[in-house]
Amino acid sequence: MSAQRGRVVAISGGIGGAKLVLGLSRIMRPEDLVVIVNTADDFEHLGLAISPDLDTVMYTLAGLDDPQRGWGRRDESWNFMSALAALGGESWFALGDADLATHIERTRRLRAAETLSNITADFCRRLGIATRIVPMSDDRVRTRLETDRGLLEFQDYFVRQRCAPVVLKVVYAGATGARAHPDAVAALQDSRLRAVVICPSNPLLSIEPVLSLSGIRDVLARRAAPVVAVSPIIGGRAVKGPTAKMMAELGIPVTAVAVARHYGHLLDGYVLDHADASDNIELKIPVVPTNTLMLSLEDREALARTVLAHADRVAKAVG
Amino acid sequence: MSAQRGRVVAISGGIGGAKLVLGLSRIMRPEDLVVIVNTADDFEHLGLAISPDLDTVMYTLAGLDDPQRGWGRRDESWNFMSALAALGGESWFALGDADLATHIERTRRLRAAETLSNITADFCRRLGIATRIVPMSDDRVRTRLETDRGLLEFQDYFVRQRCAPVVLKVVYAGATGARAHPDAVAALQDSRLRAVVICPSNPLLSIEPVLSLSGIRDVLARRAAPVVAVSPIIGGRAVKGPTAKMMAELGIPVTAVAVARHYGHLLDGYVLDHADASDNIELKIPVVPTNTLMLSLEDREALARTVLAHADRVAKAVG
Repeated sequence: MSAQRGRVVAISGGIGGAKLVLGLSRIMRPEDLVVIVNTADDFEHLGLAISPDLDTVMYTLAGLDDPQRGWGRRDESWNFMSALAALGGESWFALGDADLATHIERTRRLRAAETLSNITADFCRRLGIATRIVPMSDDRVRTRLETDRGLLEFQDYFVRQRCAPVVLKVVYAGATGARAHPDAVAALQDSRLRAVVICPSNPLLSIEPVLSLSGIRDVLARRAAPVVAVSPIIGGRAVKGPTAKMMAELGIPVTAVAVARHYGHLLDGYVLDHADASDNIELKIPVVPTNTLMLSLEDREALARTVLAHADRVAKAVG
Repeated sequence: MSAQRGRVVAISGGIGGAKLVLGLSRIMRPEDLVVIVNTADDFEHLGLAISPDLDTVMYTLAGLDDPQRGWGRRDESWNFMSALAALGGESWFALGDADLATHIERTRRLRAAETLSNITADFCRRLGIATRIVPMSDDRVRTRLETDRGLLEFQDYFVRQRCAPVVLKVVYAGATGARAHPDAVAALQDSRLRAVVICPSNPLLSIEPVLSLSGIRDVLARRAAPVVAVSPIIGGRAVKGPTAKMMAELGIPVTAVAVARHYGHLLDGYVLDHADASDNIELKIPVVPTNTLMLSLEDREALARTVLAHADRVAKAVG
């Protein structure tokens, strides 16, 4: 492995991942960063094709994200939702008025046989995003959860049932046959690759679906650059979402170390929070403790720098 | 024909028609009024099924209409349109944020194989509309215009090209095979029928499509109640829209009388504006001049009363 300056591939889900991606995008040349985004929690709702993680990353990089909510767009209005409820429509999944444009236009273009990746690239161009955002696949992969209330589609579990059901198993339906996006594979095979960063997203819901694609898994197994993950668990808790609850239900200890163990041989280095630094010793890969709670823009940039520096150290040690 | 109190069927397009329908709805018992609405300017846009005339009538009766614009909803916001334009989407047809709920929910239910009439009835119920609104047909009829710029879909001509092309011919594609809605036919055959009111909508774009359905035409030819039309032309001008321009292009004089002549034997009585009262003498059916410019709610109710009184007079004279 070499530590030369070069390309970075980030693998990301929604909120937490998008924060680190923003940090990376601010300390790197745009052409040096490729983000592979989970699409397994994409779904059809009200006839619209919705890609929550893609949109969160896209809105975040465009500066359109809502920093409080963590999803959707800032300065959003909700007149569509009110009117929909008055007509008896399904209102459990909140779609902002401006956000709707993304879903309606994406749906229209998908129906016209454009690929999700092309549409995403065009949206990014129009929103002034220089970083390359690549959906993990243009094929359909869907996260489903075997729970104590039966098999649930991800958004049903996540939004409608507010993660209340007990998760017994996570399934990535369609993953076996799905083709990893060629640009994602190419980015991971790039001879200039400096590091692969696994963002602090839910390992089971956001990262595993990407890794479940054989095209991604195979090329990562033969990697020439270090893979460094950032823990989504801080002091035994997830910053947001059902990560901690789900890990516990699946028998995974809710610790930063358990996440690293979950990734196993895939990791060459690990970044966790100061709060979890005492667990270091349990891992056989180089670990760096830092501040992983990204409250400010400076936090995002600082974490991005720490991650890349750690990757470079790991590369030197191994290479 | 009998002049007894009873049922009234109104045939309506959008703006002007909806105003008179509102007037009728305010002076009648809800169960006595059925509105047959043109659906030939319905279209698909951005993957959504849009029914402009149905929505205008529905919003008007629900008190949700925008009195200035004449289409869409009052207190509307436009964040969807701004966001759509930023993504490079087609923005020539303005869809308000709350209005979108109607189109998205209707589209979803149509795709689930519900009929347009059922969906409309359910929307009306939820919006508190007691008057029965019936689409002229659940089958697809589409107004197309042969113009000096080629054959155009109606909304392309009407909105995108702002009625600029010269109209050579109006075609109601699908009308021959389309089945008039059974409830519309039943309402016209009702033994309690007091009058059929042809609203002051564009005769070529809003009323003719309804009359182009054989199921409607046949039952009107055998009618037992008077048909009374209200002129959409006031002093040689249309209150709104392309009526006057299109009539002129098609060689129809832009006069109230010409509209009555256009309807021909279908009419038993006619209501026109004081401004056009001097033309009375040219028509062989009973004509009543009144104020047809419906600026206030009182105007709408007064016109509705005049129309029904005229129908009752006509019925007595003929019956």
